Amino acid sequence: MSQTNFDIIVVGGGPGGYVAALRAAQLGLSVAVVEANHLGGICLNWGCIPTKALLRASEINHLLHDLPAYGFKADNISFDFKAVVARSRAVSGKLSGGIAHLLKKAKVPVFNGFGKLGELAKDGTRKVLVHEKDAVTATLSARHVILATGARARKLPGLEPDGKLVWSYREALVPEELPARLLVIGSGAIGTEFASFYRNMGSEVTLVEVAPRILPVEDEEISAIAQKSFEKQGIKVITSAKLGALSKTASEVSVPVEAGGKTQTIVVDRVISAVGIVGNVENLGLENTKIVVDRTHIVTDSLCRTAEPSIYAIGDIAGAPWLAHKASHEAVMCVEAIAGKTVHAIDPTKIPGCTYCRPQVASVGYTEAKAKEAGYKVRVGKFPLAANGKALAMGEPEGLIKTVFDAKTGELLGAHMIGAEVTEMIQGYVIARSSELTEAELIETIFPHPTISESMHEAVLAAYDGALHF
Amino acid sequence: MSQTNFDIIVVGGGPGGYVAALRAAQLGLSVAVVEANHLGGICLNWGCIPTKALLRASEINHLLHDLPAYGFKADNISFDFKAVVARSRAVSGKLSGGIAHLLKKAKVPVFNGFGKLGELAKDGTRKVLVHEKDAVTATLSARHVILATGARARKLPGLEPDGKLVWSYREALVPEELPARLLVIGSGAIGTEFASFYRNMGSEVTLVEVAPRILPVEDEEISAIAQKSFEKQGIKVITSAKLGALSKTASEVSVPVEAGGKTQTIVVDRVISAVGIVGNVENLGLENTKIVVDRTHIVTDSLCRTAEPSIYAIGDIAGAPWLAHKASHEAVMCVEAIAGKTVHAIDPTKIPGCTYCRPQVASVGYTEAKAKEAGYKVRVGKFPLAANGKALAMGEPEGLIKTVFDAKTGELLGAHMIGAEVTEMIQGYVIARSSELTEAELIETIFPHPTISESMHEAVLAAYDGALHF
Repeated sequence: MSQTNFDIIVVGGGPGGYVAALRAAQLGLSVAVVEANHLGGICLNWGCIPTKALLRASEINHLLHDLPAYGFKADNISFDFKAVVARSRAVSGKLSGGIAHLLKKAKVPVFNGFGKLGELAKDGTRKVLVHEKDAVTATLSARHVILATGARARKLPGLEPDGKLVWSYREALVPEELPARLLVIGSGAIGTEFASFYRNMGSEVTLVEVAPRILPVEDEEISAIAQKSFEKQGIKVITSAKLGALSKTASEVSVPVEAGGKTQTIVVDRVISAVGIVGNVENLGLENTKIVVDRTHIVTDSLCRTAEPSIYAIGDIAGAPWLAHKASHEAVMCVEAIAGKTVHAIDPTKIPGCTYCRPQVASVGYTEAKAKEAGYKVRVGKFPLAANGKALAMGEPEGLIKTVFDAKTGELLGAHMIGAEVTEMIQGYVIARSSELTEAELIETIFPHPTISESMHEAVLAAYDGALHF
Repeated sequence: MSQTNFDIIVVGGGPGGYVAALRAAQLGLSVAVVEANHLGGICLNWGCIPTKALLRASEINHLLHDLPAYGFKADNISFDFKAVVARSRAVSGKLSGGIAHLLKKAKVPVFNGFGKLGELAKDGTRKVLVHEKDAVTATLSARHVILATGARARKLPGLEPDGKLVWSYREALVPEELPARLLVIGSGAIGTEFASFYRNMGSEVTLVEVAPRILPVEDEEISAIAQKSFEKQGIKVITSAKLGALSKTASEVSVPVEAGGKTQTIVVDRVISAVGIVGNVENLGLENTKIVVDRTHIVTDSLCRTAEPSIYAIGDIAGAPWLAHKASHEAVMCVEAIAGKTVHAIDPTKIPGCTYCRPQVASVGYTEAKAKEAGYKVRVGKFPLAANGKALAMGEPEGLIKTVFDAKTGELLGAHMIGAEVTEMIQGYVIARSSELTEAELIETIFPHPTISESMHEAVLAAYDGALHF
């Protein structure tokens, strides 16, 4: 008979859950994972990873229509949309299989089913029941339980995905064919990436946002550059938008959109609803615990502890920011704390965020406005990629790097980037911010030439009156 | 009459020279530049920048022949080689014009001509004579002179570039047509980049190296991966090679190459000689000074001071590493010291190096072997890009990240990368190395998901028994 009693049971096999399990096994703890769907969770199967594969295709399509700029030409450029989608699914499938392999190698049992918290036994262990359909297929117990069940798309009344004309990210990832006309509702990372993908593949795209600007959590200047670029690419952007009731025919959706005092009706073939997410807090047996739920998220302290001793929550279910790297970092912290190691609470201003639209957007820490709101006197530096040699050589001169420093201490408060490859570059600023480096260390650092990353140096120099190439 | 007396005269308008001038102007010093050829020097006109534009073309050509992997197809894919080269020249031209504009905006006069040190006047100022052809066109003087005349291709006896069949980097950058068969001699950054460019454009390429491995300054494991990848791409690599005398016909070159105990004769249409560089120390009037020349480089201390008071040397003329970012960093340091600021000597182990072949190579600090030679007990971490989700999604799973830590203190001694986008990613490790961060800060840093840069985190975790995804 297989083991049913563990040091830790992780409920949910997404990036928080499986990383918690792998780290626990590394530290010599006995651990099991309970997962109802795919290992890797939304991120790997229906989020970060498959979207990146799709966006790679849309970047290629963009390049193929810009070949003469580089001295190339080709006839009959085309794509097989099913093959593009199939490649994206294959990448997800391969990685999900990779997670299964890693867990197996680490000897972590995976219980397929829906995990539900049961009673607290007298010996201090917690029961976790594994459900498949309506049956309990396993009864496990553990000294510690980590809840990592993730989140799902928020459904706004009247905007509920119907799987046919109105899509959530799930349907948007596996389209049968390219919609000729597409409306994307919501311009956070998810909505913006889909708008970018579909537009670069050839759809006519309208992006609507209730806030006054797209990518509303980013620095205002970055949002403005993104919007300008999207519009140049032919995306119709409507901000400060109020949506009326959708009306559908068999193949079309009409949406009245009010903005700037007038209403227009947008008629499209498909709608993507990307209006945020809600935590998967239902049917977890929370009623058997003291755990507190705030709206759809489990309330935790800065070390991921819930109100119920020995039960932890990490990742999306524990609240914003809804990012896989936040989940996996919490996972490691949470498990190390259980193992008795000294851990540090995660500072949200040290968590980077990336949006893989074209041009890419990446940031960490305070925006200029947020820094001022928080009472900082700031020094701001900016450097446009149009002044960067490598960006010109690559044919990618669009973008800006912006730094925000504490004028008093020189601490890097935030960094904001838009342009080619910035999602791979932001980590330099994250290292700096995470280690509380100041302008002095960054100025002293020798960035390699010729790289776009030199602009990161220039954006620091610019904040201290020393920009060289602008 | 225009000004002839300055605080600083900079001889040479390459990345060291023009940056020195811009920084001097920023600090309120009067400064002039003397440049015999193009502003921006070799780097901008005949090196870093135009090669990157060419390599962009070769990456595009590679992608165009791999379209089905992404679900795309196209017929009659072709390039206009003259247009590819013209684009590269246009990028250089634009940037050189940009430097002229920056100097003009900073009110820095540029004297076109060859700068030569003259006598030391009684008031302590140094004469600098500007020559054009055989005439002296201006006589300037300054309290400080910065020599930044750069370097040129080394000519090995019997391997002298003839501009027709045997090229230096100059001819290799402006080919009339694509050679069908090409021999590249020397597998440093320059040779390797040309081998990669020409191979990916369709030439049959042989790369020969006298050392036992290509990219001999890189970590051995990186060299091995690069060689394997080049060979997979169809580049013939010959290491530990001894070259015999070249024999030429009107259109072909034959070269006997001895390696592994046997000699083969390689017949090609063109040869690129990339066997290092020599400093431009001639005709500078050094005989009027105490300046010491070692082989072809001016001897300086760690603050770029020569043996002659008030004369400095920066960049390639002051010795290895021959990198534009070393030159520009020395420029800033040198000028700030002249201006009375506190400066820090540059630690060569904090200067990154990048090679833009496919796959790209980037590194900073000690290789594993060098660290051991230096007496360190090391901890080494490795992570293959094949285990990285973003790399898979991009279709770029080839590569490795390797970290070398001081086992005693946890200091990051070196980092070595091969794979997609590593030239833009290395700056994170450079920031860490430059600020003497340890494994603790890097482990604590939250790298964004999904990025290739997460592999940088994993390579740190791997050195400390905590790798998660491998």
